[in-house]
Amino acid sequence: MAYSGEPILAADLLFRPEHSLIDQSLHSRLGEETTNGDGFGVGWYGEGTEPAVYKSIEPAWNDENLREIARQVRTPMLLAHVRTSTGTPVQRSNCHPFRHGRWLWMHNGVLHGFHEMRRELLLAVDPALFLDMEGSTDSEMLFYLALTFGLVDDPFAAVARAVGLVEEVGRTHGVENPVQMTVATTDGESLWVFRYSSERHSRSLFFSTEIATLRALHPEVEALQELGGDTRFVVSEPLRDLEGAWNEVPESSAGRVGPGGDEIRPFAPITPT
Amino acid sequence: MAYSGEPILAADLLFRPEHSLIDQSLHSRLGEETTNGDGFGVGWYGEGTEPAVYKSIEPAWNDENLREIARQVRTPMLLAHVRTSTGTPVQRSNCHPFRHGRWLWMHNGVLHGFHEMRRELLLAVDPALFLDMEGSTDSEMLFYLALTFGLVDDPFAAVARAVGLVEEVGRTHGVENPVQMTVATTDGESLWVFRYSSERHSRSLFFSTEIATLRALHPEVEALQELGGDTRFVVSEPLRDLEGAWNEVPESSAGRVGPGGDEIRPFAPITPT
Amino acid sequence: MAYSGEPILAADLLFRPEHSLIDQSLHSRLGEETTNGDGFGVGWYGEGTEPAVYKSIEPAWNDENLREIARQVRTPMLLAHVRTSTGTPVQRSNCHPFRHGRWLWMHNGVLHGFHEMRRELLLAVDPALFLDMEGSTDSEMLFYLALTFGLVDDPFAAVARAVGLVEEVGRTHGVENPVQMTVATTDGESLWVFRYSSERHSRSLFFSTEIATLRALHPEVEALQELGGDTRFVVSEPLRDLEGAWNEVPESSAGRVGPGGDEIRPFAPITPT
Amino acid sequence: MAYSGEPILAADLLFRPEHSLIDQSLHSRLGEETTNGDGFGVGWYGEGTEPAVYKSIEPAWNDENLREIARQVRTPMLLAHVRTSTGTPVQRSNCHPFRHGRWLWMHNGVLHGFHEMRRELLLAVDPALFLDMEGSTDSEMLFYLALTFGLVDDPFAAVARAVGLVEEVGRTHGVENPVQMTVATTDGESLWVFRYSSERHSRSLFFSTEIATLRALHPEVEALQELGGDTRFVVSEPLRDLEGAWNEVPESSAGRVGPGGDEIRPFAPITPT
Repeated sequence: MAYSGEPILAADLLFRPEHSLIDQSLHSRLGEETTNGDGFGVGWYGEGTEPAVYKSIEPAWNDENLREIARQVRTPMLLAHVRTSTGTPVQRSNCHPFRHGRWLWMHNGVLHGFHEMRRELLLAVDPALFLDMEGSTDSEMLFYLALTFGLVDDPFAAVARAVGLVEEVGRTHGVENPVQMTVATTDGESLWVFRYSSERHSRSLFFSTEIATLRALHPEVEALQELGGDTRFVVSEPLRDLEGAWNEVPESSAGRVGPGGDEIRPFAPITPT
Repeated sequence: MAYSGEPILAADLLFRPEHSLIDQSLHSRLGEETTNGDGFGVGWYGEGTEPAVYKSIEPAWNDENLREIARQVRTPMLLAHVRTSTGTPVQRSNCHPFRHGRWLWMHNGVLHGFHEMRRELLLAVDPALFLDMEGSTDSEMLFYLALTFGLVDDPFAAVARAVGLVEEVGRTHGVENPVQMTVATTDGESLWVFRYSSERHSRSLFFSTEIATLRALHPEVEALQELGGDTRFVVSEPLRDLEGAWNEVPESSAGRVGPGGDEIRPFAPITPT
Repeated sequence: MAYSGEPILAADLLFRPEHSLIDQSLHSRLGEETTNGDGFGVGWYGEGTEPAVYKSIEPAWNDENLREIARQVRTPMLLAHVRTSTGTPVQRSNCHPFRHGRWLWMHNGVLHGFHEMRRELLLAVDPALFLDMEGSTDSEMLFYLALTFGLVDDPFAAVARAVGLVEEVGRTHGVENPVQMTVATTDGESLWVFRYSSERHSRSLFFSTEIATLRALHPEVEALQELGGDTRFVVSEPLRDLEGAWNEVPESSAGRVGPGGDEIRPFAPITPT
Repeated sequence: MAYSGEPILAADLLFRPEHSLIDQSLHSRLGEETTNGDGFGVGWYGEGTEPAVYKSIEPAWNDENLREIARQVRTPMLLAHVRTSTGTPVQRSNCHPFRHGRWLWMHNGVLHGFHEMRRELLLAVDPALFLDMEGSTDSEMLFYLALTFGLVDDPFAAVARAVGLVEEVGRTHGVENPVQMTVATTDGESLWVFRYSSERHSRSLFFSTEIATLRALHPEVEALQELGGDTRFVVSEPLRDLEGAWNEVPESSAGRVGPGGDEIRPFAPITPT
């Protein structure tokens, strides 16, 4: 889940769903989603120029420190992630969101054949960036490939090139459809999202409708009065059944939310030449 | 889950269900049962006269140390428990099974109104035993009340008196049906089980049929050849659909499994006089 | 360690000692102090009326979440504590500071004979407060006894009565010198400190000199320019060798720091009548 | 610490030093040694062909599960290690001993310049072995380089070639003395130890004298009667002041302990050609 908008108390996003567009608390959502809960993480922008991250391999719903922190932190941009391990160890350094400089990155999905491709992909990471990698997941690898290919300057192109490389390496290892991903990444100002899979059958991704529009549609919903006008949520599944609230990101698409307007555009991998 | 029988590798009980009567691994069972997994524990008899316990508040399915240990330990009596907190903190000292001397105790269920009754129940615990209590759960309280009332000498009577006391205290606090329990407890030789609730609508409890009988019924099931002749399982739900394998403990009953024969008998609380 | 003063970044207090009166980082201090480090905790006032607490049983110096949080939190009142267990389990609910409503409490020391006195002391806690106790330490017990005796209304008298009770109970159990304590407690406005032991040989306790005075004494020390004028530190040992910076709280004394002026006064237990 | 000899209860090695040659319990030793305790691990041979490992990033002296396990496990070969991180994350996958197949490996020391050399060393690891690496430490890297160079067949030569490679790579990065190591590694039968550093100023390493000799020297020491005749300890420092008990492994040496006799020989890196 990603939030972008007016500064808001993290606890309102994570634990008081009645104050948001999400009608289940983290507690119950985690309960439902994480029969295989293999760690979680929250990243946000607050004091200082770099985002903060809070990650743990204990179940989020039992993490009393998380509840304490969430009641103390206000932020205009928050990413929250629950991990389902696809084979790599359950340890803090493998929890999302990943951070590099001002950037946060989180990923739902999997690189099929990652175990076999890992060495080759690692060699493709900029040696200067390589030193900052701490974990062993496919998701962090994709992040560092995107950073290698210019994420900071042109997120759309950088992710397209990273995905193109993974598909190329996958081909040489006989992996049919190596990439299955939905990604959210941010520099604290804008939020970029990606929905793509090699077999063109990607996991779902939704973004929320402008608050002004929703208020007009649902004048009786109190939460909408409390949320700021710039509020944007991005989620894997529309968690509240509110007519007109959720818009699906189409298959093979990418988008940007933030100052200067939102946009959605087609996404296609760029194969290395 | 409780196992009593010939010494067996703990890993075969916990992680290799194809070798047992239970047709799902701990991994998948935990996945199913523990959307609210609030800690787990394993207790067993091995070296020395006192049982060993391994408990943790991290999810069992991610606990690599548990897998390592389970492959090193052989035991004729093992109890395994996954906790769902009913309000008390998630910490090691609140995980089952609880141990006192040679005894292990685990409990599925809840003492309704425990928060209100707790002080009064605590006062009923033998002051000499009181000092050994480490946690804050209703389950440990029930164990110490049973110990206070003579668990070591007569488990049936001791649990009946403990339950009778809780119901009495509940009445004075206006709690209608204070007790909902299935309990398994052992001294390493015999295994006692209890199924009871104040409203006479208790959680289910099953024990397994004698292995010789099962082998005759299902000569084609390999696992039955590998299991020892004294094998007994006690579980909350019959996890494998094998005809004739599982027998339900009736409502308001208690039983004993072990050397000298098995028995099941009616269970009724003994009200303090 | 306790800080009271202008709002300050927690990280500056905990991890950037060059910006404070304390000349060692938490990292190195913990390294020195905690060869027996049995958990730590930080409590502070920020958003909302109740203080927040962050506690853990993992070593503070390896706690990456703590570092993240400390860089995001500004507070005018912070308590930090490293625990050395005197026998009770190492678990989050036994870590200081303890919280009740708007109050925080932390304690260095020990109630000798606590194991034997525990049941009797527990009975002396207001039954309505009893329900909020979560841990099993002597320190939390002392806090709840003080709350029982009116901490919220008159901290000096309440602690005196709590200590008096413990000494009385100790006498009946043949414990010669039951109390050894330094305590810091706060409602977010004022900070109260206590130094007392039954044998009149208490652990040391120091508070810092007014910043204006220190600036005049040490115009060359930069940290003094950055600290606010209301800054007050309370520590067990003067961690920086800066002439005139630290003042010892005398044996058998109590004090208050906060708006309306500071005061130190003799402390004597009030024996129950 | 490494133990080789007659099967012994792990608890006697780790927690009952009066029964061994080591005169401090793990508890107190850890207290002394681990002001920077960044995780610990124990590896041993028991059931099955592969060794078991128990590792944790919580302090060993608070790990109640470790105490439980140690009282249940008998083993003829045990390695125990307390980690001091030299920069890589504190997580289970970075704790010693490392395991591959039947082999265990632990390392005290550091590869200077590891951050800069890491990518190049990683490329030197056999791609088939690379997939099994889970952590990010210099110690695991050295293990996998040794495996790459034939540890299973000729431990002396394999470690010499691994060290030679690291020194070569170090030279190209301008690292003056890249290697500082004492290593213990075993296949469950024999135990190999190495003491070496590029600057020929290595950390100390000691092995214990034959028990028969020690019994003759110290007929009054009871522990010597209880220990088996094949007992061998390897430690960083002679932890008990018993005359004649400890022998230093000389600078730039390697040794083997096990069936067929012990040997110590000079150690010199083999530079890649």
